Amino acid sequence: MRKNLRYGMVGGGPGAFIGDAHRRAISVDDTARLVAGCFSRDPEKSRDHGNALGLDTERCYESYKEMALAEGKRKDGIDFVVVVTPNATHYEVCKAFLEAGIHVACDKPLATDSSQAEELKRIADEKGLLFMVTYTYMGHVTAKYVRDLVKNGEIGTVRTIMAEYPQGWLYNEKDWGGKQGEWRCDPKQSGRVNCLGDLGTHVENAVAMMTGLKIRRVLAKMDIVVPGRKLDDNDQVLVEYEGGATGINWTSQFAIGCDNSLRIRIYGSKGTILWFQEDPEEVTLIKEDGIPRLVKRSYPAITPEAARYGRLPAGHTEGWLEAMGNLYDSFGECVAAKRNGTFTEEMIDYPTIGYGIQGLKYVEACLKSQENGNVWVEL
Amino acid sequence: MRKNLRYGMVGGGPGAFIGDAHRRAISVDDTARLVAGCFSRDPEKSRDHGNALGLDTERCYESYKEMALAEGKRKDGIDFVVVVTPNATHYEVCKAFLEAGIHVACDKPLATDSSQAEELKRIADEKGLLFMVTYTYMGHVTAKYVRDLVKNGEIGTVRTIMAEYPQGWLYNEKDWGGKQGEWRCDPKQSGRVNCLGDLGTHVENAVAMMTGLKIRRVLAKMDIVVPGRKLDDNDQVLVEYEGGATGINWTSQFAIGCDNSLRIRIYGSKGTILWFQEDPEEVTLIKEDGIPRLVKRSYPAITPEAARYGRLPAGHTEGWLEAMGNLYDSFGECVAAKRNGTFTEEMIDYPTIGYGIQGLKYVEACLKSQENGNVWVEL
Amino acid sequence: MRKNLRYGMVGGGPGAFIGDAHRRAISVDDTARLVAGCFSRDPEKSRDHGNALGLDTERCYESYKEMALAEGKRKDGIDFVVVVTPNATHYEVCKAFLEAGIHVACDKPLATDSSQAEELKRIADEKGLLFMVTYTYMGHVTAKYVRDLVKNGEIGTVRTIMAEYPQGWLYNEKDWGGKQGEWRCDPKQSGRVNCLGDLGTHVENAVAMMTGLKIRRVLAKMDIVVPGRKLDDNDQVLVEYEGGATGINWTSQFAIGCDNSLRIRIYGSKGTILWFQEDPEEVTLIKEDGIPRLVKRSYPAITPEAARYGRLPAGHTEGWLEAMGNLYDSFGECVAAKRNGTFTEEMIDYPTIGYGIQGLKYVEACLKSQENGNVWVEL
Amino acid sequence: MRKNLRYGMVGGGPGAFIGDAHRRAISVDDTARLVAGCFSRDPEKSRDHGNALGLDTERCYESYKEMALAEGKRKDGIDFVVVVTPNATHYEVCKAFLEAGIHVACDKPLATDSSQAEELKRIADEKGLLFMVTYTYMGHVTAKYVRDLVKNGEIGTVRTIMAEYPQGWLYNEKDWGGKQGEWRCDPKQSGRVNCLGDLGTHVENAVAMMTGLKIRRVLAKMDIVVPGRKLDDNDQVLVEYEGGATGINWTSQFAIGCDNSLRIRIYGSKGTILWFQEDPEEVTLIKEDGIPRLVKRSYPAITPEAARYGRLPAGHTEGWLEAMGNLYDSFGECVAAKRNGTFTEEMIDYPTIGYGIQGLKYVEACLKSQENGNVWVEL
Repeated sequence: MRKNLRYGMVGGGPGAFIGDAHRRAISVDDTARLVAGCFSRDPEKSRDHGNALGLDTERCYESYKEMALAEGKRKDGIDFVVVVTPNATHYEVCKAFLEAGIHVACDKPLATDSSQAEELKRIADEKGLLFMVTYTYMGHVTAKYVRDLVKNGEIGTVRTIMAEYPQGWLYNEKDWGGKQGEWRCDPKQSGRVNCLGDLGTHVENAVAMMTGLKIRRVLAKMDIVVPGRKLDDNDQVLVEYEGGATGINWTSQFAIGCDNSLRIRIYGSKGTILWFQEDPEEVTLIKEDGIPRLVKRSYPAITPEAARYGRLPAGHTEGWLEAMGNLYDSFGECVAAKRNGTFTEEMIDYPTIGYGIQGLKYVEACLKSQENGNVWVEL
Repeated sequence: MRKNLRYGMVGGGPGAFIGDAHRRAISVDDTARLVAGCFSRDPEKSRDHGNALGLDTERCYESYKEMALAEGKRKDGIDFVVVVTPNATHYEVCKAFLEAGIHVACDKPLATDSSQAEELKRIADEKGLLFMVTYTYMGHVTAKYVRDLVKNGEIGTVRTIMAEYPQGWLYNEKDWGGKQGEWRCDPKQSGRVNCLGDLGTHVENAVAMMTGLKIRRVLAKMDIVVPGRKLDDNDQVLVEYEGGATGINWTSQFAIGCDNSLRIRIYGSKGTILWFQEDPEEVTLIKEDGIPRLVKRSYPAITPEAARYGRLPAGHTEGWLEAMGNLYDSFGECVAAKRNGTFTEEMIDYPTIGYGIQGLKYVEACLKSQENGNVWVEL
Repeated sequence: MRKNLRYGMVGGGPGAFIGDAHRRAISVDDTARLVAGCFSRDPEKSRDHGNALGLDTERCYESYKEMALAEGKRKDGIDFVVVVTPNATHYEVCKAFLEAGIHVACDKPLATDSSQAEELKRIADEKGLLFMVTYTYMGHVTAKYVRDLVKNGEIGTVRTIMAEYPQGWLYNEKDWGGKQGEWRCDPKQSGRVNCLGDLGTHVENAVAMMTGLKIRRVLAKMDIVVPGRKLDDNDQVLVEYEGGATGINWTSQFAIGCDNSLRIRIYGSKGTILWFQEDPEEVTLIKEDGIPRLVKRSYPAITPEAARYGRLPAGHTEGWLEAMGNLYDSFGECVAAKRNGTFTEEMIDYPTIGYGIQGLKYVEACLKSQENGNVWVEL
Repeated sequence: MRKNLRYGMVGGGPGAFIGDAHRRAISVDDTARLVAGCFSRDPEKSRDHGNALGLDTERCYESYKEMALAEGKRKDGIDFVVVVTPNATHYEVCKAFLEAGIHVACDKPLATDSSQAEELKRIADEKGLLFMVTYTYMGHVTAKYVRDLVKNGEIGTVRTIMAEYPQGWLYNEKDWGGKQGEWRCDPKQSGRVNCLGDLGTHVENAVAMMTGLKIRRVLAKMDIVVPGRKLDDNDQVLVEYEGGATGINWTSQFAIGCDNSLRIRIYGSKGTILWFQEDPEEVTLIKEDGIPRLVKRSYPAITPEAARYGRLPAGHTEGWLEAMGNLYDSFGECVAAKRNGTFTEEMIDYPTIGYGIQGLKYVEACLKSQENGNVWVEL
């Protein structure tokens, strides 16, 4: 049932895909009501957009700083903020809201370097604030089920993990992928990294959350392949995990025919798990008899810890928005619990800022490996 | 952008899956805001549920009649009502709201016999009211794309259609499927038909909306298979369409391993189309070269009339709630257009009451065929 | 190891696909050596073809009658004959060899009517001769595994069987499918039936051999769809089996995109089996937990009675020729056992003439049903 | 039609899978007749096995040397020899037959180091003898079709290639995979390499033959993972090709659920090709519209150079033996052409000794990379 939470949004103006997606994902479960926002750097645009979304004009803010201050003071202020601004600004925006005592949900990647991210974590911890990084894919019931299968020893010790996330939308040298592609491929806006930051962090996060393994070191080959590009668009990374498991992480932006093909294959001493985000209603589990078992999202075999996020019976598909909705389900529950004093750490079932920091460290290590000629770099 | 529509709901109390689903589907696009409801025959339950959903107590009604009257009179009354009560009550509830001048969205099946349904249509037509029957699956972008492929002649003349919708949840004679299953299998609540009414009407509707073909006659075999059942749980229907195409419609409730397996295969003189609702992001199109082409929901190949309902880029899956959301997108647009006087028939892109009537006639013809020993019955 | 069997062939001249296929299938296991033949009605062609295949000229016969007589008398005469002539001649050819005391392997359909077929059986039984009808698909290890699963009660009581065999090669009204298609579509050569005789008998046989069920009655709709055709090219048959199971058998020759799509889906009270001949290395077994299990041809789960026909380890695919080779493996074993007096009925693991007769009766019943306006006809 | 070729075999005694497979593959097309052999080091076993296979006792030899000499001198001597002995003996056996003037077909890997292989090539070239290395998978029609698609520019310039060949049969530390596994895992019999030699060479060969690309350098991580193993059982290799394409080659022996999963994914500037040897009847081709097209082995779209090896119509599956048969089809044609003086280099459509040498160099470079700490090594 509804928790009567209120939230605000920074970014997500007209035409911004990701802001729209967050709003839909929160609406589908009626997790919280949008009551405030700063949707654009242009105050008029911000106000018009807020009004169109049904906000009172007084809560359509001209700047995120003003918003943080004002909402922090209101009695009926927002319970949390959703930050969906360009990546380079995440740090300052999140910081402002944390300092105003407001819980934060921030799109990934969390910041441009890991020290910024660690600072945000420090502030959040000091103030007892919640901080979610919206790695959407980990909201899928099936992703949580994979996590539980590994945790419960269903496939024994993890031996190697083949993880990949190829896309194809930037394959064409004449087409820079519109507004979305242009800023990603532009060193001025994206810094030293493109594909690995956008997709590689998802891969790293999926493996981390599904297996619980920590990366010990990486050997990265980051290539710029499509003519004219200035940043990596194909990354092939050898990985060693603490405890001895190995793996390969592959990401690409020119793999024609790959839409959004995050795929995780986990090979253990007693079984194998296959998970593919474009087919998010299903996990393939293979035990020692070699027989693939296709377990669907709402089958009795699904662990209760994962199944509880499902809304619909088997065969009634849930998708990407529902996955993001699941992140907000847990986050909203924690925010509400914070409000009424019942919060405990065990309630957290969303990607915390710790995962956001890990992602940035992964990118930094890969960059170093590439710059030094594809050598091993410890994390 | 939001249309500032208001809606009410009849049915959909605590624990009712379908009411919850409609609310989510409307929320995901912010199509309308729930402001009134009669959620249960028990006034207290109705009120509590309405409050929990954020309604004012005065708009949590004790009966649907009271609600229809009151909302019909309010200046800020609901723009449309969503009827998700047990099937046997659809007729009376819908009638009350139509008579109060309120547009109606009603779950399928529309009524218990086609004459009731025709009466509802007569009232709606007289009053110029919109009436949607929520055949959810037809909301999928890919279902609309199939319709466009057929309409545009991409597969030539349709020759035969193999349509099926098996489920497995009622396979076990010891398990009557909980509350959901019990009323379906109970002649007192469901009348003369179970499986064919629940699933067969979806099959009939899918073929009708995708191909535009009208059924000329049917030869139905309706079997009661699982020991102890009293109504059909497996239906195998030979179909002849006007113009000469043929087909088979199969529905079952004991097909273990089938969750919600509505599958339509359309064979034409120049090509074949395969559509499977459990994989709703994809259509398989085969032309005369025999090569299956897998077209995804947001590919450039999708017709604009279908593509416009998509929310997310390729590979970001949309599911069943989004499909139902799409029905409400078109319905909401039409309701808004009615309000501001811009409505035209061409705007309708949802299953109208006419399809609801067709479905009932299909069931009636099948029952007659079965009762007469599996003979052909004209529609 | 090789059994030193000798065989002859009637039919299978230059360009004849099916004769070539039988020879390859026998060669792949070195089951028998081709030593005699009558490959064509033209004696010169027959001799040249035999020579090209490595036969002595004296065993390249001018007529099948001469061949039957001569080989029946030789000390080193053929152990069995393979009959791959046009269907209408099967009866007379098989009869000649049976009368000469020679075991027979005959392509399906066995004869043009069931009384002929029964006569052949009578002769074979009287003389203690073996008679195989080469329903190729039943040679697949996976088909035998399906049979064992049903027999062993793995899916409980069979409730309904959805069986189909659509092809697409005759979809085009301007193209009669070359030599192969022309005789099939020609009433003078094929009698009263085309698609149902060619494909429908495979469907009937697959269900019979896999489930052990006997058909009680059929209700058939046999349509002539492609303009210009004179015989059925689309058949939709309702089936009732002894014991109460039901089913649908669908066959078509214009289903674009279907190559050779024999697919059997068996729904039982405790599980479901899916088998698809275009993916013959795999069976899908679903038990009451709803989880599809993909069992591969050479997995430990395969029953020994089925697995023993496999030649290669898992993942090394076997195909259609190997399936036919498996039929000859069992047939050759029985022929060899007949020769050395160790034969018992239990050794038979190929489709006997009894199945051939059943197939013809099925066709005859369907024709009667169609002619009487799609009514039930007992077998 | 049959070419009346005669062949001999060295190795392939009772219970030897690979010798049996070669004989079946040659039989299925009647490419050549087995007339001589040395099947075992034990003369009695060799003779018994030869007799069981139908050979004259005088051509069941006690040693390969004797066989090479005798057959080289006979007027009706073998046209070619098939060498299927343990890998470590390939070199000496092949050399003996080449020196006797006999064409050679040898199982892979060709030798234990590349210098031996180069010596064999030198002898073959000097004597004008043919030398095939039986990389079976490249015999598939679909593999040849992939080669033609790349060659014809259908996917533009190749950018990256993700190639893998995981198996799972050696996952269990308590099970050394029987006779087959034991010698592979034993440094005494296999030298310094196990998995990479067995599977990695297939991967390298598939990419080489499909794309025509030559490897410039490799960076290999060769791990020993399953407890107790002494040689690599998981290899993850970064590859750079001449011209700038990149790729990853992954092979494993403990990937539970992977039977024989050679999979090649080729991403080009204008399209993508997916090929999977466990589904060898199909190629997925994706062009710039993003739509996967599933092209089957015998569709009109298949290039004539590939299609000519097919035996059966679409939907009649061909498998692994047929693929190997295809290698022998081309090899037999070349041997026959050598015999009658019509041979030209252009006729060769099988993996030559040159590919065998490349494979060994690939292994040697990977070993060096691994030994030096996963650094780039030029080929």
